[in-house]
Amino acid sequence: MVNVGIVGIGLVGSELVSQILKSSYKNVFKVVGLTTSQKMLVSDAQYTSLSIDQEANLRSTVNATGVQTDLAQFADYLSKSNEHSVIIDCTASEQVANLYPTWLRSGLSVVTPNKKAFSSSLDLFKEIQDLAVNTSQTKKGRSPLIYHETTVGAGLPVLSTLVDFVRTGDEIVKIEGIFSGTLSYLFNNFSTLTSTAAPKPFSETVRVAKDLGYTEPDPRDDLNGMDVARKVTICGRLAGLELDLSTLPVENIVPEALQSIESTDEFMAKLPEYDDHFAKLNAEALKENQVLRYVGMVDVQGGQSGVKLAKYPATHPFASLQGSDNIIKFTTKYFPNGVIIQGAGAGAAVTAYGIFTDLLKIQERVEGF
Amino acid sequence: MVNVGIVGIGLVGSELVSQILKSSYKNVFKVVGLTTSQKMLVSDAQYTSLSIDQEANLRSTVNATGVQTDLAQFADYLSKSNEHSVIIDCTASEQVANLYPTWLRSGLSVVTPNKKAFSSSLDLFKEIQDLAVNTSQTKKGRSPLIYHETTVGAGLPVLSTLVDFVRTGDEIVKIEGIFSGTLSYLFNNFSTLTSTAAPKPFSETVRVAKDLGYTEPDPRDDLNGMDVARKVTICGRLAGLELDLSTLPVENIVPEALQSIESTDEFMAKLPEYDDHFAKLNAEALKENQVLRYVGMVDVQGGQSGVKLAKYPATHPFASLQGSDNIIKFTTKYFPNGVIIQGAGAGAAVTAYGIFTDLLKIQERVEGF
Repeated sequence: MVNVGIVGIGLVGSELVSQILKSSYKNVFKVVGLTTSQKMLVSDAQYTSLSIDQEANLRSTVNATGVQTDLAQFADYLSKSNEHSVIIDCTASEQVANLYPTWLRSGLSVVTPNKKAFSSSLDLFKEIQDLAVNTSQTKKGRSPLIYHETTVGAGLPVLSTLVDFVRTGDEIVKIEGIFSGTLSYLFNNFSTLTSTAAPKPFSETVRVAKDLGYTEPDPRDDLNGMDVARKVTICGRLAGLELDLSTLPVENIVPEALQSIESTDEFMAKLPEYDDHFAKLNAEALKENQVLRYVGMVDVQGGQSGVKLAKYPATHPFASLQGSDNIIKFTTKYFPNGVIIQGAGAGAAVTAYGIFTDLLKIQERVEGF
Repeated sequence: MVNVGIVGIGLVGSELVSQILKSSYKNVFKVVGLTTSQKMLVSDAQYTSLSIDQEANLRSTVNATGVQTDLAQFADYLSKSNEHSVIIDCTASEQVANLYPTWLRSGLSVVTPNKKAFSSSLDLFKEIQDLAVNTSQTKKGRSPLIYHETTVGAGLPVLSTLVDFVRTGDEIVKIEGIFSGTLSYLFNNFSTLTSTAAPKPFSETVRVAKDLGYTEPDPRDDLNGMDVARKVTICGRLAGLELDLSTLPVENIVPEALQSIESTDEFMAKLPEYDDHFAKLNAEALKENQVLRYVGMVDVQGGQSGVKLAKYPATHPFASLQGSDNIIKFTTKYFPNGVIIQGAGAGAAVTAYGIFTDLLKIQERVEGF
C-alpha cells in the first residue's frame, strides 16, 4: 500500500480522489492527507484512509472540518509512515514547488501537474533531478521518485515517451507541438482550409473561446505564449538541453500596444483594432495552402528552440487538428518520420488520469507488483 | 542487474543487443544467453556478460561457436541465477510461445514481439495473464513479469497506454487503427485526395510495395488481414474482451479466386484482373471526398470488433496518413474525442527500441531504481 497526500483540492485534486476510489486500486492507494490553502486534514497514526463522502464537495469538507494548513507538518506526517508515501501537488504555486527538495530529502515521492519546479529556476530543476532516484544518474535505492507526466499534455503519454527515448539511447532530433489547448482551439477555428466560409475576425474567435471558458480569465495569459514556453522548457530539459524561460525565444502574439493595458475588458475591447493584422497573416498562409498554428519547438541539434506562430501545409497533421487537442511530434534517430501523440491536453478528468498513471508507476516500483 | 537471454537472433535480436550495448544501461542488462534455431551460447556460472563483437554478425557468431539449441536447458540456466532474468522471444514461433507458462512458473520474466501467445488460444493467453505478476489480479511478489508492447505498433506506446486506461478505471469505448505498415503503405498510396494524378492500378501498388520489401514474401499474407486480426485480438483482450481469431470478422481483400492459388508468382500475375474492382471502390470513396483505409476495430461496448476496408473523410487523421505509419485511436470515457498515437509500427530499430522500453520497466520493478 502507498499513502497519498494531496496539496490543493481543486477540480483536479477532487477528480483524482474520485478516480482512485472508483478504481480497483482503492485499497492500494490510501488517501491519508488533504489540504487547501487554508485548511488541512490528516488521518491517524495508523495511516487509515480518510473516510471520504464522494457525493460531498471535497474542498468544502476540508475547509469546514480541517485544521490550519501547515505544509511542513503535513509532509512530516506523511514521511513518518513505514509505508511509502507520495505527496501530490495539485497547486500551480511556485512556493509549493520550492518545497520539493525538502520533501524528496525526507523520502517522500512527488507527483504533480505543477509546471513551476521543472520550468523555472534551472538550479531547482537540477536539484530535484539529483534527489529523485528515477531521474538521478547516481542515486540507487527504493525512494524517493518524482513524476510529472501532466505538466505537458496532461494525461497524454508525452513525457514518458520522451524519457524512454532518452534512456534507451535514441537520439532526439526535434520535438514540435501544439502544447496549448487554448491556442489549439483559437487557430484550429481561425485558420482552416476545409471551411468554405470566410474566416471570422480573430478577436471574435478569442471572444468565443473566452465565453466558453477555454481561455484564462485574461486571454493574454494564453496569447503571450508563456504556458507553451514552460512546456517547451520542460521537454527540452528532459531531452538534455539547459533551456531557460528567460532566454527562450517566445513570440507574444498580444499586439504590443495591448500588452501593458491593465484591464481585461479594455484589452478585449481594443483587440478588434488588430483583426486586420491577424487576417492578413491568415490570408497569406491560406494562399500558400497553409494554415497558422501556434507551436513550441525543441530543436535538440539545431539550437532553434522556441515558441512561435508558424505555417503548416494542408497535409501536415498539425493542419487537420480539431477542437482543443494537443499534438506533439517527436523526431528521433529510431523514428526519423516521427512519433505523434494527439488528444485532449487539458481538463480535470484527463489531468487526474495522468496523475493516476504516475501513481501506478510509483506503486509498481516500490511494491514490485 | 538483470540477466537477459534472447531466443532468436535475427534483425530485431541483433539490433536489441546493439542498442543495449550502446546505451547507458550496458552494465545493467547483462546479455548472458543467445540462441538461433540451431545453436545457442550461454555464459558462465557467474552470469558474466557474453563478450560480443558489435562489428561481427551476431547470428553467424552464435551458429559458428554455439552448442546445439536446447530451450529447456537455456531457460534452466537463466532461472538459476540469483539475479532477476528475462527471456526475450524474438521469434514468431507458436511453439516457442507455448513455452511461456513454463518459463513464468520458473520465475523468468518474458518480453516479446511475438504475437502468438496473445492472439492464438484464449486458454494460453489466460494462463499467461494468471501467471505474470503484472497482469494477474491475485498474484503478489517481485516476479515474474510479462511485457509485449511490440506485438502492436512495434515501439509505439500503444499497449502501455491501453493498459493505463484499464488500470485507472477509464472506460474504453473503441480502439480503431491502421495496424499494418504494409496495408498503411498500400492504401496511403492507392487512395489519396491530395494527389492530382489518377490513382495507379491496385496491383501496381502491391507490386511496388513487394519490390521495396514492404510486404511479406507472399503479399496475400498481408492482404488476408490476419496480421491485423492478431493485433486487434491482442488489444481487445487487454481491453477485457474475449476476442478469438476464429470468430473475429476479418475482411480478406485477396480476391476469392486468388486465395487458393499456390504460387506467389501466379497470384501476382493474376492480380491485375481485379484492378477494376479496387478502382471502383476507390472511385466511390473519392467521389464522397473519402479515402479507403484497411482498419482494425475493437468495439468494446457495441460488440462490432473486426477488420475491414473502410472509408474515411478527408478531415480524419487516418486520411492524411503517409508512408507506412501505423495510427491508433483510443476513444474512452476520459478522452471522448480520442487519443491518437502515430508513427512507424514496423522495422528492426523501432521494434528493438520497444523491447528495450519493456526491459526498463522490468528493471525498475525488480530493482526499484
